Amino acid sequence: MRPTTLAVIGLEPLGGSLAWQARRAGIPRVIGYSPQPADAVRALKVDAISDMALTPEKAVHGADLIVIAASPTRTAQLIGALAPQASPDAILTDVASVKAPVCRAAAQHGLADRFAGSHPLPASTSATAGRTGPDLLRGAVVYVCPVGSSQGDQAVRQVMHFWSRVMEAEPVLIEAERHDRQVAWTRHLPQAVSCLLAKTLAARRLGGVSFGPGARDATRLAAEDPEDWADLLLENAGPILEALAKTERELTRLQTLLERGDRDGLRSYLADAAAFRRGIER
Amino acid sequence: MRPTTLAVIGLEPLGGSLAWQARRAGIPRVIGYSPQPADAVRALKVDAISDMALTPEKAVHGADLIVIAASPTRTAQLIGALAPQASPDAILTDVASVKAPVCRAAAQHGLADRFAGSHPLPASTSATAGRTGPDLLRGAVVYVCPVGSSQGDQAVRQVMHFWSRVMEAEPVLIEAERHDRQVAWTRHLPQAVSCLLAKTLAARRLGGVSFGPGARDATRLAAEDPEDWADLLLENAGPILEALAKTERELTRLQTLLERGDRDGLRSYLADAAAFRRGIER
Repeated sequence: MRPTTLAVIGLEPLGGSLAWQARRAGIPRVIGYSPQPADAVRALKVDAISDMALTPEKAVHGADLIVIAASPTRTAQLIGALAPQASPDAILTDVASVKAPVCRAAAQHGLADRFAGSHPLPASTSATAGRTGPDLLRGAVVYVCPVGSSQGDQAVRQVMHFWSRVMEAEPVLIEAERHDRQVAWTRHLPQAVSCLLAKTLAARRLGGVSFGPGARDATRLAAEDPEDWADLLLENAGPILEALAKTERELTRLQTLLERGDRDGLRSYLADAAAFRRGIER
Repeated sequence: MRPTTLAVIGLEPLGGSLAWQARRAGIPRVIGYSPQPADAVRALKVDAISDMALTPEKAVHGADLIVIAASPTRTAQLIGALAPQASPDAILTDVASVKAPVCRAAAQHGLADRFAGSHPLPASTSATAGRTGPDLLRGAVVYVCPVGSSQGDQAVRQVMHFWSRVMEAEPVLIEAERHDRQVAWTRHLPQAVSCLLAKTLAARRLGGVSFGPGARDATRLAAEDPEDWADLLLENAGPILEALAKTERELTRLQTLLERGDRDGLRSYLADAAAFRRGIER
């Protein structure tokens, strides 16, 4: 769908960038709400939104497409709060990186035929570096998840159309539970491992030493917001715990190779790791 | 010291960059040897070296400073091979990132009063990205390690002087075992964790999924040469195993927090990790 009035609830980099790009694509009215009013004022000034709302409920008034851009926990809460406020024919989506709890909330609040979950993966690091931009989402892969009932087909089509035609992104249809198991590996496990490495180094309390670019890269994700990530990891705890159990096994294997001084085994282990990493280079 | 004839054994990024910068600093003769003759030819062409030698033994002939730029294992071997070939008053150093085995080899081969180990940490990522450059080492912190006997004071002074005056780097004196315990945490642990994450993801065999910038950053180190790293990790296995044991403990803590759904505990864990990471940002 190409909305006439788009409401964006949350203007942190992902929501703010989506609003901005929709404005550039010619959407006549983009109403923005941010829990930090200063963000909304900034967005107004650069014409990333056309209207600023002081509450999420006011933002969705008259909108034909509503995008919730918040953590998974907060997204599920907002779905409940906004379901009675949205126009009866409005389509809703979100951008949270965990989809099963969000889709369940939509079904619980009677939005099965009007909601489809979205999870965009910006191609650049600017989003994770906390910057809003008018073309952050262009070309991004966007996972789109049905609520689970066949009633939702229309909502899925509309949301996918919005991503491909208005946002010039690449929507991919995927079932929510499958999405969450996949993202547990591709995104949440790297986050968890980066954090546990940083935590281990923090606990060692090394004073006056130099950490080089290697240590900084391997722990970069750990600098991201702890509150947001506590929510994300807990919302997807099951699949992440499975991935961490496999990580534990690989840690034990590495320790054994080092204890035994097994040079050939260690080379083969590191060669598998290198082949994987070189294979995902852009 | 400011050498008249400098021999550089190994022209991979670190050795090649050192040679190049020494030439720029006006060292009249810089003799380079590389196991890959094409690297030496390239270095000659850009005047990163003034002379090319076909064997390490020929390279050190007449040199008053000899820099060995190879893996720790190979460095220890080269010390043994070159000790009888070097001029009796030549000073020797190296650039390997593990120092105790290298300093032990120097002592064993009668170089206690003429050898001091070096470990430069280039400030930029270009070295780890495999690029040679004429100013890679300018401003780098360089750990300099005595062989252990008081006889080595003169060698330490000369090597530190070379780093500060010729290379415009920042030499720091540190005892070899202490250096190796420290680098096990600052550099080798991030490498090991990045590799074990990549190995875990590789073993999962996810087909057709998108890995974003987060996963690519957290595993970037895993792309480095497996043979070199098998050597490095085994040469410093003791301190690295200590660091991995602490990592295992932090992994268990993270798993427990997720299993219990302990939001406050998880936030505090992630906040410690974030504070550490933000503290090492340049």
